[in-house]
Amino acid sequence: MSKIKVGVIGASGFVGAELTGILLKHPEVEISGLSSINHVGKAISELYPAFTAQYDQKFEENDTVINRSDILFICLPHGESENLVKQCMDQNKKVVDVGADFRLKNLDVYKGWYGVDVEFPALHEQAVYGLPEMNREEIKRTKLVANPGCYSTSILLGLYPVISKKLVDPGSLIIDAKSGVTGAGKTLSEGTNFAVKNEGFNAYKVATHRHTPEIEEKLNLMGAGEIKVSFVPHLLPVNRGILSTMYVDILDGVDAKSIQPTYENWYEDEPFVTVLKAGKLPDISHVQHSNHCQIGLTIDERTNRLIIVSVIDNMQKGAAGQAVQNFNLMLGIDETKGLSMVAPSF
Amino acid sequence: MSKIKVGVIGASGFVGAELTGILLKHPEVEISGLSSINHVGKAISELYPAFTAQYDQKFEENDTVINRSDILFICLPHGESENLVKQCMDQNKKVVDVGADFRLKNLDVYKGWYGVDVEFPALHEQAVYGLPEMNREEIKRTKLVANPGCYSTSILLGLYPVISKKLVDPGSLIIDAKSGVTGAGKTLSEGTNFAVKNEGFNAYKVATHRHTPEIEEKLNLMGAGEIKVSFVPHLLPVNRGILSTMYVDILDGVDAKSIQPTYENWYEDEPFVTVLKAGKLPDISHVQHSNHCQIGLTIDERTNRLIIVSVIDNMQKGAAGQAVQNFNLMLGIDETKGLSMVAPSF
Amino acid sequence: MSKIKVGVIGASGFVGAELTGILLKHPEVEISGLSSINHVGKAISELYPAFTAQYDQKFEENDTVINRSDILFICLPHGESENLVKQCMDQNKKVVDVGADFRLKNLDVYKGWYGVDVEFPALHEQAVYGLPEMNREEIKRTKLVANPGCYSTSILLGLYPVISKKLVDPGSLIIDAKSGVTGAGKTLSEGTNFAVKNEGFNAYKVATHRHTPEIEEKLNLMGAGEIKVSFVPHLLPVNRGILSTMYVDILDGVDAKSIQPTYENWYEDEPFVTVLKAGKLPDISHVQHSNHCQIGLTIDERTNRLIIVSVIDNMQKGAAGQAVQNFNLMLGIDETKGLSMVAPSF
Amino acid sequence: MSKIKVGVIGASGFVGAELTGILLKHPEVEISGLSSINHVGKAISELYPAFTAQYDQKFEENDTVINRSDILFICLPHGESENLVKQCMDQNKKVVDVGADFRLKNLDVYKGWYGVDVEFPALHEQAVYGLPEMNREEIKRTKLVANPGCYSTSILLGLYPVISKKLVDPGSLIIDAKSGVTGAGKTLSEGTNFAVKNEGFNAYKVATHRHTPEIEEKLNLMGAGEIKVSFVPHLLPVNRGILSTMYVDILDGVDAKSIQPTYENWYEDEPFVTVLKAGKLPDISHVQHSNHCQIGLTIDERTNRLIIVSVIDNMQKGAAGQAVQNFNLMLGIDETKGLSMVAPSF
Repeated sequence: MSKIKVGVIGASGFVGAELTGILLKHPEVEISGLSSINHVGKAISELYPAFTAQYDQKFEENDTVINRSDILFICLPHGESENLVKQCMDQNKKVVDVGADFRLKNLDVYKGWYGVDVEFPALHEQAVYGLPEMNREEIKRTKLVANPGCYSTSILLGLYPVISKKLVDPGSLIIDAKSGVTGAGKTLSEGTNFAVKNEGFNAYKVATHRHTPEIEEKLNLMGAGEIKVSFVPHLLPVNRGILSTMYVDILDGVDAKSIQPTYENWYEDEPFVTVLKAGKLPDISHVQHSNHCQIGLTIDERTNRLIIVSVIDNMQKGAAGQAVQNFNLMLGIDETKGLSMVAPSF
Repeated sequence: MSKIKVGVIGASGFVGAELTGILLKHPEVEISGLSSINHVGKAISELYPAFTAQYDQKFEENDTVINRSDILFICLPHGESENLVKQCMDQNKKVVDVGADFRLKNLDVYKGWYGVDVEFPALHEQAVYGLPEMNREEIKRTKLVANPGCYSTSILLGLYPVISKKLVDPGSLIIDAKSGVTGAGKTLSEGTNFAVKNEGFNAYKVATHRHTPEIEEKLNLMGAGEIKVSFVPHLLPVNRGILSTMYVDILDGVDAKSIQPTYENWYEDEPFVTVLKAGKLPDISHVQHSNHCQIGLTIDERTNRLIIVSVIDNMQKGAAGQAVQNFNLMLGIDETKGLSMVAPSF
Repeated sequence: MSKIKVGVIGASGFVGAELTGILLKHPEVEISGLSSINHVGKAISELYPAFTAQYDQKFEENDTVINRSDILFICLPHGESENLVKQCMDQNKKVVDVGADFRLKNLDVYKGWYGVDVEFPALHEQAVYGLPEMNREEIKRTKLVANPGCYSTSILLGLYPVISKKLVDPGSLIIDAKSGVTGAGKTLSEGTNFAVKNEGFNAYKVATHRHTPEIEEKLNLMGAGEIKVSFVPHLLPVNRGILSTMYVDILDGVDAKSIQPTYENWYEDEPFVTVLKAGKLPDISHVQHSNHCQIGLTIDERTNRLIIVSVIDNMQKGAAGQAVQNFNLMLGIDETKGLSMVAPSF
Repeated sequence: MSKIKVGVIGASGFVGAELTGILLKHPEVEISGLSSINHVGKAISELYPAFTAQYDQKFEENDTVINRSDILFICLPHGESENLVKQCMDQNKKVVDVGADFRLKNLDVYKGWYGVDVEFPALHEQAVYGLPEMNREEIKRTKLVANPGCYSTSILLGLYPVISKKLVDPGSLIIDAKSGVTGAGKTLSEGTNFAVKNEGFNAYKVATHRHTPEIEEKLNLMGAGEIKVSFVPHLLPVNRGILSTMYVDILDGVDAKSIQPTYENWYEDEPFVTVLKAGKLPDISHVQHSNHCQIGLTIDERTNRLIIVSVIDNMQKGAAGQAVQNFNLMLGIDETKGLSMVAPSF
């Protein structure tokens, strides 16, 4: 069987490099090209020496890569994907947009948070939000997937069962999330300089992070109604991993004991989501370098709150891994193909 | 002027070692002895080689050290201080108990959370909770200080102004705290093994940590009334530092803009607490190796919540540093003597 | 085609867990059982939660696992393999011994450094030292492979070309090696406690490490003659990776410029060894989580020394990965099957 | 007694910030000003938030600070100090130059390695190399101290006794050194980006580092003769600390057993150097945040080599701490004043 020709647009960034690493091991994939805005002509192994002598592919122009591919992964900062997606769709290519441009259905909200004007509203309607646990069937049928944000993925997976089943008060939701440094990307900054970050830990973009409207819109679609959440991200001194701690009031009349089995049933058949047994809690080290999500639940009986802790690898289930999961679904391939189910133990 | 004879009980643990390091540099102090339960006869420099050739003092029996001292710092696991405190008080010594035995005034609550029976209730009445920013005058007059828990310190300092001024709804309070590994002490465990923790991050004792009743009781004394809080601690892959993120509903009718100046005024004269300017956020790296606390405030206008972020060094303001601050107050010495106001920058 | 039944003896240690993770993804392998000395009846996922819900296999007794398997990986402390290897060989099983028992051909030297008596000398004669780049053909034909030590692997690969070609003076060799903490294994110790190691770095077993005679014997076989090397290992505050820096005098009359191409030619066809271009230096982060070795060369013209820097992942090419590489060779499978050629970029 | 007016030139860099932190606690010092090339008008607390509300001093122009000071610390990249030193000396100020401009007496060698022309050779003659353990009396009498390089300090202290006593062959010397990341300074670079460095470790400037001629020249002055050393620095994933491992042949006829007591006697009265007992080895964590140096010795009897391991904190004894030690000597103050003898234990 001939392999699928896959191009990576924006392959010089962290997500692009992670994605290239996954695709190289994917048995159905032939990488048809890597593009970069700033590094055309340079080999990916010059930027990421782990590829040295194994894959010294040079970055090319976007157009070159698009023309040569059946499907494109686009890994660009927000505002830079829309035109390229239009170009790909016009050429009848499939697209997984790993950036933020197509995640929000409400374009006014999008413009408000991102400050970007939408040029092709029809494309945005067409895009499917690529959280397979929520939209698997739509993903299988679409030609354009908007890959979710990393924080959003960890949070939505953690809340989906209990929001859908209406066991909690969505308006009470408080989300305290912590991410590894690769989430900040390749660009050098004071805050991600080793000497500053090594023993540092801080909150940032308190209640102003751009994943907030994404979380709110998708929770609404899950059954929460129009809510506003308090969302505070923090930056951990580790490379990979997001741990989100979510606090939400259990509704009166709900049997708190039913919540654990509800989660277990809900995710029973999901290949990449594990609900830990009652009393067990996840650690980001359980999922680093895998596409897995682990969820641990605690009932705070003193306050009648549900406290949910979920972990993912921000580069895998939070970005490149989930993009490949979506790719597999779009192409009719086994959803887990080429993806790691079990993280290394250290 | 003759120096004060200071003994450290339980000096072989992490807090004991940190305290010994501070006391060695304190100009008014003569260390009269170090005791240890398990290491009598061994030098502190064998356990903590940073002391080598500078301070090779050997651990002695508790009694030996007590007899030789004017004031004792007791750094023992909960349940192990009470008898020693009795012994010291009977000998008319002063005591800073760095452990948990005397922190709670409500002895039923203490017994419920710690599973320990109280033998000398009168001693507990006598003890002053050693948060100088709250109880400075009582600390100056007492012979027995109960040094606060590390998490409690970071949380109470973060909430004190707004709870006292009744600007928020204490019942809505959610506290998400993150601590460095030294908080777990010297005992070896799987969870603090380097290979596990190095790139790990996890929540633990979710809604069951023993600092919970301490936080609730002291908030009550500050004006919160009888409340129950949701408190979730997490373990960071760093040595030192606690960052607590606190979420609380602003009361209707309160002018959110007044909150920042309220904090600034409240702590204006405090040597060890800094309220950062609006828009600035603290990082644990700003306070490591100092006795300082930094607080940053954000109004989440979309949800009308106040989000407070506070940082301390768990070994300094969260334990040994605050113990010395209390010692200074009890002895009528300048409160900042021997303590570091400014952390190293990296 | 039916899969090969593979058992892991001593699967509860770090190397056993890493090996299990690799074998789970190996397309020709069916894991026939995991044994453990101390954890029989417990699931591997209880010790290593990354396996949770994906592979909750329980540890069994050694005999149970051996009986069920065609080939065994033995991951035990030195002195504990020999009897088990005898048992396996008597049952006509193949064995990769990942421990130290069969690495040395000179049994007196073995006894001198390890303090262990040899019971079955014939077995030791039969064993092939499992460095594929040195002994590929013998490995293909043997039923018993002695998997090399982690330090030894990084060092021997770094020296092989120049020792074989007799371009340097082997007697001048000095080896300064640095390893990640997983090399110390799962057992808790003061030295690998997070708070001690996090910002720590130290030399240990200076000139007394047990890989010394292994390095000397294999260098001798490569052409160095009977030499003694100075070998100093250090412990890095990272999880994985060994970087060895080797200093050796270039022989008079040797054209220093020929050394770089000599290395490049020597390893040209090796799937897991890359000689970096002149001027480039390796980093342990280039090979973590892969079975790769990278080598960088510098001629110190001022002293006429060759300085060789090699990196591997101590858990992969230094232990479990190389064991699987040997397994592939022994079974006639593609040598790279199931192994990672390209490390993740971060 | 009136305090000494001390100015810091180049206070916005890492060494400048560390120095400012030390000087703030020095009882004899009044900081008369901080200068910066790029940040005039900005407060040091904006760059280093640990100073916030404790010391919000603004950076000023060099001239302003120089005019106001009795003594200047100059913390600038090589090539940028010479003119300023001239200016200070002309104004009869004392100077500790923390940069490299005055470290080498052989100006040809200086020009060869640094590519910088010397304008004022007489100044270079006047400068005293500020290693107190070597040049204490000269330092006391001079007005211009050249503060040693960080690597050089760790290496020279480790070798001084055995080179002076001529117990080893200096020509055989090999130095393998490892430094924390603050040694690379404040400037952002790919190599010190957190995601790259966090689990990374590498050699750099192999046999080409600019501290090489400094080490060679000072060893010569100690009695080594004109030698060339192989010196390879490596970059550790920690903030602070240098560990240097030194390998040198013991001369025929020397009683190896005499070496340990020779070191102990040599450094007996040195406040900042500790020779560990035989069998003990230092760790960078033993000296971080202190001005101390620890040295451990091993005789490799198999090869008749002496292996010396020394540790310092590169920011303290390797830069700012040693600069203050020199300042104390120059001003006739107790040499240890304001400096930390004992590192924190974690």
